[in-house]
Amino acid sequence: MNFKQKVINTIKMKGSAVCVGLDVELGKLPQILKNEKDPVLKFNKEIIAATKEYSAAYKPNLAFYEQFGTKGFEYFEKTLELMGDDVLKIADAKRGDIGNTSKKYAKAFFETFNCDAVTVSPYMGEDSVTPFLEREDKGVFILALTSNKGSFDFQMQKMPDGRYLYEIVIEKISSWNINKNCGLVVGATHPQMFEGIRHLAPDMPYLIPGIGAQGGDLENTVKYGFVKDEVLALVNSSRGIIFASDGPDFAERAGEEAKKLRDMINSYM
Amino acid sequence: MNFKQKVINTIKMKGSAVCVGLDVELGKLPQILKNEKDPVLKFNKEIIAATKEYSAAYKPNLAFYEQFGTKGFEYFEKTLELMGDDVLKIADAKRGDIGNTSKKYAKAFFETFNCDAVTVSPYMGEDSVTPFLEREDKGVFILALTSNKGSFDFQMQKMPDGRYLYEIVIEKISSWNINKNCGLVVGATHPQMFEGIRHLAPDMPYLIPGIGAQGGDLENTVKYGFVKDEVLALVNSSRGIIFASDGPDFAERAGEEAKKLRDMINSYM
Repeated sequence: MNFKQKVINTIKMKGSAVCVGLDVELGKLPQILKNEKDPVLKFNKEIIAATKEYSAAYKPNLAFYEQFGTKGFEYFEKTLELMGDDVLKIADAKRGDIGNTSKKYAKAFFETFNCDAVTVSPYMGEDSVTPFLEREDKGVFILALTSNKGSFDFQMQKMPDGRYLYEIVIEKISSWNINKNCGLVVGATHPQMFEGIRHLAPDMPYLIPGIGAQGGDLENTVKYGFVKDEVLALVNSSRGIIFASDGPDFAERAGEEAKKLRDMINSYM
Repeated sequence: MNFKQKVINTIKMKGSAVCVGLDVELGKLPQILKNEKDPVLKFNKEIIAATKEYSAAYKPNLAFYEQFGTKGFEYFEKTLELMGDDVLKIADAKRGDIGNTSKKYAKAFFETFNCDAVTVSPYMGEDSVTPFLEREDKGVFILALTSNKGSFDFQMQKMPDGRYLYEIVIEKISSWNINKNCGLVVGATHPQMFEGIRHLAPDMPYLIPGIGAQGGDLENTVKYGFVKDEVLALVNSSRGIIFASDGPDFAERAGEEAKKLRDMINSYM
């Protein structure tokens, strides 16, 4: 099954387009976990158990694991195992390099770590992305228009034909999408751009960060970024879900926030 | 001491602008190491010992370590230790994310792994790069014009004012370089662009890949990419040095290739 279909099926089966960002930070862990042998893993385990019913995907961002060095990759590997097989496992790694090197990254995330998808940066062009596209069942979400302020620096540069750079990027990505396994990262902080982006790339899955702490606009994101018949977008929330409480009820509260986000998205559809 | 000065001093002290890319591949290791307990580490140890006299920097590319999963990060950590303190340790990671996430990557590479520099992708703009710039003694080499074919896809897009996108990128980077710790990645496969790039960014160190297997032009790279009085560029070779031989003489041959590259660069200066 190609990655696009896998996204559609998972969202349908779970009745949810929620992606939970597992961006663990030692300083924000609940007091109650401080004496655990492995507080990071214990935290992820409880968060996953509490949110799984309401989520279609998990997205650990590699930076939050690499900060611990080698130990962090053990956390990453074990966290992936905790997710089970009925959700999409997205490595938010924003990788990308010359061809023979991207090939090794693809091996790392798709074979060694067995993720379903990885985020990739497009700046180095076609041969930096295509090694990630060889397996139709594994997907990439390529940075198109990101949720941060810096998205205005280059992505929103105007080109000679009046389009933005990110539109050129999306056009190129469409031409690489032979195996139906390309997706886009589009930030919820740019809801006014979603209609145009969906027009450019009607049948690619989107990974949408920027809800919650970053202040994105959920209603318009769903209105313009989603596709009517088949849901083709995952809305990510990290801090808003996993750090909803730092008390002993942290997991319960995370579950409530995931459920609330699922229901809000579904109500806007 | 700021990173720029650290680059100048190291190149001067070593009498070399050579950077050795430690991009280890199991399939290319010499037969003689196959029965070692840790062939990867043994290989890196012998390569570093044989090339150290002729090199100013080492640049392990993270993809080649991540392919091994958690074990790979142990290799990465131990490889860094093998380099000693009189060379620059460059993590070729091409990272970059929203601010609070780039901050964790900076922590990973500058604190946890104690590298001197890391490569960063500019696509997400200012707040994705500046968290790497807080320590003046730690540097970033930001992708400007890369050595691969895909560099034509976006980096060489023409902007409305006639400039290329990579020139806009370099201009922005210059404005972020307050702590004198920004550098650029510029591929040796674009020697005709070097003169213009040096004009735009006269006092930033360059990390120059693309020599050797990628077919870059060393003579013109040195002629136009280097600066006359103080050498402000590192020329990287990976496969051309470390896989010069797969026989029992692999380390000796790597040393010879590093020496040859050092001497060629010095002769063109």
